[in-house]
Amino acid sequence: MSNTLQPGPLPASMQLDDNGKLRHFLTIEGLSATLLTEILDVAESFSVVATQPVKKVPLLRGKTIFNLFFEPSTRTRTTFELAAKRLSADVMNMNISTSATSKGESLLDTLRNLEAMYSDMFVVRHADSGAAQLIARHVAPHVSVINAGDGRHAHPTQAMLDVFTIRRHKPDLTALRVAIVGDILHSRVARSQIHALNTLNTGEVRVIAPKTLLPENVEQLGVQVYHSMAQGLKDVDVVIMLRLQRERMTGALLPSEHEFFRLYGLDEAALAYAKPDAIVMHPGPANRGVEIASSVADGPRSVILEQVSNGLAIRMAVMSMCLGATGGGKG
Amino acid sequence: MSNTLQPGPLPASMQLDDNGKLRHFLTIEGLSATLLTEILDVAESFSVVATQPVKKVPLLRGKTIFNLFFEPSTRTRTTFELAAKRLSADVMNMNISTSATSKGESLLDTLRNLEAMYSDMFVVRHADSGAAQLIARHVAPHVSVINAGDGRHAHPTQAMLDVFTIRRHKPDLTALRVAIVGDILHSRVARSQIHALNTLNTGEVRVIAPKTLLPENVEQLGVQVYHSMAQGLKDVDVVIMLRLQRERMTGALLPSEHEFFRLYGLDEAALAYAKPDAIVMHPGPANRGVEIASSVADGPRSVILEQVSNGLAIRMAVMSMCLGATGGGKG
Amino acid sequence: MSNTLQPGPLPASMQLDDNGKLRHFLTIEGLSATLLTEILDVAESFSVVATQPVKKVPLLRGKTIFNLFFEPSTRTRTTFELAAKRLSADVMNMNISTSATSKGESLLDTLRNLEAMYSDMFVVRHADSGAAQLIARHVAPHVSVINAGDGRHAHPTQAMLDVFTIRRHKPDLTALRVAIVGDILHSRVARSQIHALNTLNTGEVRVIAPKTLLPENVEQLGVQVYHSMAQGLKDVDVVIMLRLQRERMTGALLPSEHEFFRLYGLDEAALAYAKPDAIVMHPGPANRGVEIASSVADGPRSVILEQVSNGLAIRMAVMSMCLGATGGGKG
Repeated sequence: MSNTLQPGPLPASMQLDDNGKLRHFLTIEGLSATLLTEILDVAESFSVVATQPVKKVPLLRGKTIFNLFFEPSTRTRTTFELAAKRLSADVMNMNISTSATSKGESLLDTLRNLEAMYSDMFVVRHADSGAAQLIARHVAPHVSVINAGDGRHAHPTQAMLDVFTIRRHKPDLTALRVAIVGDILHSRVARSQIHALNTLNTGEVRVIAPKTLLPENVEQLGVQVYHSMAQGLKDVDVVIMLRLQRERMTGALLPSEHEFFRLYGLDEAALAYAKPDAIVMHPGPANRGVEIASSVADGPRSVILEQVSNGLAIRMAVMSMCLGATGGGKG
Repeated sequence: MSNTLQPGPLPASMQLDDNGKLRHFLTIEGLSATLLTEILDVAESFSVVATQPVKKVPLLRGKTIFNLFFEPSTRTRTTFELAAKRLSADVMNMNISTSATSKGESLLDTLRNLEAMYSDMFVVRHADSGAAQLIARHVAPHVSVINAGDGRHAHPTQAMLDVFTIRRHKPDLTALRVAIVGDILHSRVARSQIHALNTLNTGEVRVIAPKTLLPENVEQLGVQVYHSMAQGLKDVDVVIMLRLQRERMTGALLPSEHEFFRLYGLDEAALAYAKPDAIVMHPGPANRGVEIASSVADGPRSVILEQVSNGLAIRMAVMSMCLGATGGGKG
Repeated sequence: MSNTLQPGPLPASMQLDDNGKLRHFLTIEGLSATLLTEILDVAESFSVVATQPVKKVPLLRGKTIFNLFFEPSTRTRTTFELAAKRLSADVMNMNISTSATSKGESLLDTLRNLEAMYSDMFVVRHADSGAAQLIARHVAPHVSVINAGDGRHAHPTQAMLDVFTIRRHKPDLTALRVAIVGDILHSRVARSQIHALNTLNTGEVRVIAPKTLLPENVEQLGVQVYHSMAQGLKDVDVVIMLRLQRERMTGALLPSEHEFFRLYGLDEAALAYAKPDAIVMHPGPANRGVEIASSVADGPRSVILEQVSNGLAIRMAVMSMCLGATGGGKG
């Protein structure tokens, strides 16, 4: 596989219905600033639900949501399952080994069967880039597909919860410098973040990484490229650290973890380059001592746990919008 | 094990309560046409539920249903779990390894414990013929047992959803010729289908298979036996293909898959023997190219996906009838 | 590890909030007779729920309960899950391999993440003594922790259901002689039972075991020590058998199982030493023929299955009390 980000852009129309409303949520690419802002605003209304004594609204009562996890991820499945339950949907968890569905034909058979059970939504996690799109292309008209992470392609709910977290702390995105640090090449999170931040006219989006962990022509995504923390973090308002996906690395790209941390890890010294009120983010789970020091991850500028809380609100927003029910917080 | 269908008939009274109402649903054998028709009619009322915005009725709210799967089957478990959730029951999934309960004593201990939790229903899937009956014989008076497939014995909800599907397309069963094709010997589905179709006075029930895949004395079940598709499919209204259960075969029974498909597979040419408006059914998952051609499985005469949808309605019907709550569709 | 019961007492204040109400339920030690009696009384009100047509109350609707099982236990998880569902809570099951969280740091990361999802309760099962306390010490203020069994330390809901069962049969605990028989050394159940019985001023608590299966200084727990069934069971009102935890034994402690049963197993002959109306208890699952004869386990004096039923009521009581909602039975 070449060092390019896969796959290419998707027609916006594929994610929207005839009235321009969200039907699938597969990738940030192609979605308008207006729509992304609507997601953030709906999530804002849902964030109230979690603080009520009854943390539940009946918006999706009687809807059936299948969590289709072709790649195991307890953490992500948990947030989607909990978001669905707080919307009062019925949730079915299915861990599907890709070996069992290695023939595209039998994957489609599985989908057809789940559709025939009058499913309303598939939340799809898959190790292959483009899998969620492939499924959305073939799905019945009554089913919405949400991409919960596909290969190195996209992880759009993660990007939206990150933007939501930033907006809560620093409401005017156009005035911000945001740096994304680490393994950009293998990161579906980074790709989705860059698209979301640029769509929302963020002042400046930077990436900081060694050349071997950057996709070719990464600047075409609309980012400034840096290879040193000292220069890249200078005067930024937001530092987003990425998880070092050791399992996605091929052998020779990296020096030792120790060396990586010295050059691209976020410790107090590196964070000092950023603005004094800069916030620190990480999609989790963090490799402490590899990409981020514990003192920073647990420090006063870290908003990592807020990201987790916000993730529920964003997922509730996207799920309810795709299913045409968004009276959030009124339950 | 000899080539006979195991085990023998069950006293009808075992599945019915003192008022003649359904208490357990273990096998089609011994149930009256009136009762089978009632199941179909109740399922008809439930099939409306799946098309409502809120696909849920409160009939079994506060009931506890245990899915006891001694043999893994994601597909079947999913349909029962979803049916139970749409009836608003609380569902508990338990995958029980038969090795852990190899002593009959400890299986009974497990059942006694689940009963003591005030369970209302056990949905049982087991690799041994007669397992669901065995459990029903020993179960406490407040628990209903549904057979979700036991060895090569019975799969009564599958048979009922098949009959339901046939009746929707061709309401007068007495006028129909139905052919069941493939591995009759190992098929609990076939056995249950034959009993259901005959109980409901289907015009003619045929089986088409090589001798090695037929039980001894199969004609005593009330079927016409054919060994060729050309003759067996002639003028039939319904073609039911069976899954070739390769895992249940012992070595020498079969020629190659290619040879099997040539002789007993359903492709366009074979289907041409049937009536022009014949429907094609399969319990799924289909082995495409082994027992059925993709062009037929996905073709205009296939009702395979309708079977999946109807399976939910049938399971909701049987569950609610066994628990004495059948106001289907009024939720 | 030495032959002492680990870990030491816990300040009662840790389990109670500022108003003296239950917040965590980690161990019986340090809780007052008044509080234990309140738990029993609330459980009494919940035991009615299980016999109603709708076995469900809305007390914990909109609450989120995580079952965190670091040690697999289908049986215990099932009772907690069902208790939570009957209280209308949303339940999330997580099996967490301890290898994945071997660094305390990443266990805490996991907990922080679950807290950030606005969880209300963690039900914790762990192979290490003190794990539930450790988690409770570090948990956010809005989360309650229930100990579902930690190493050889405590299993407080089991002890409370046992006391509940005894009280139903023999209401005046102060007049009773209770014998606990078997592997006291490795048993978290025994330790919790002894504390609960003594806190409630049980007349006399005895332990019967070979020296090798008793902790050092066990009499300091307030029990009479016996090494023979003939003497220990004489005139007791309640016989509590323990499960022989073969997986917790190190090699040389035990003679053969056959020999163990001869000396410390409960058969009809041994039971004859107890009072004629003595009841027989076991936390399950019983090793029939190892610590208890089937004729006794299934006999008229056994209340083993009542213990299972009562376990649900106790777990509903503790869960609802920790979350400040105890209008049991009024749903």
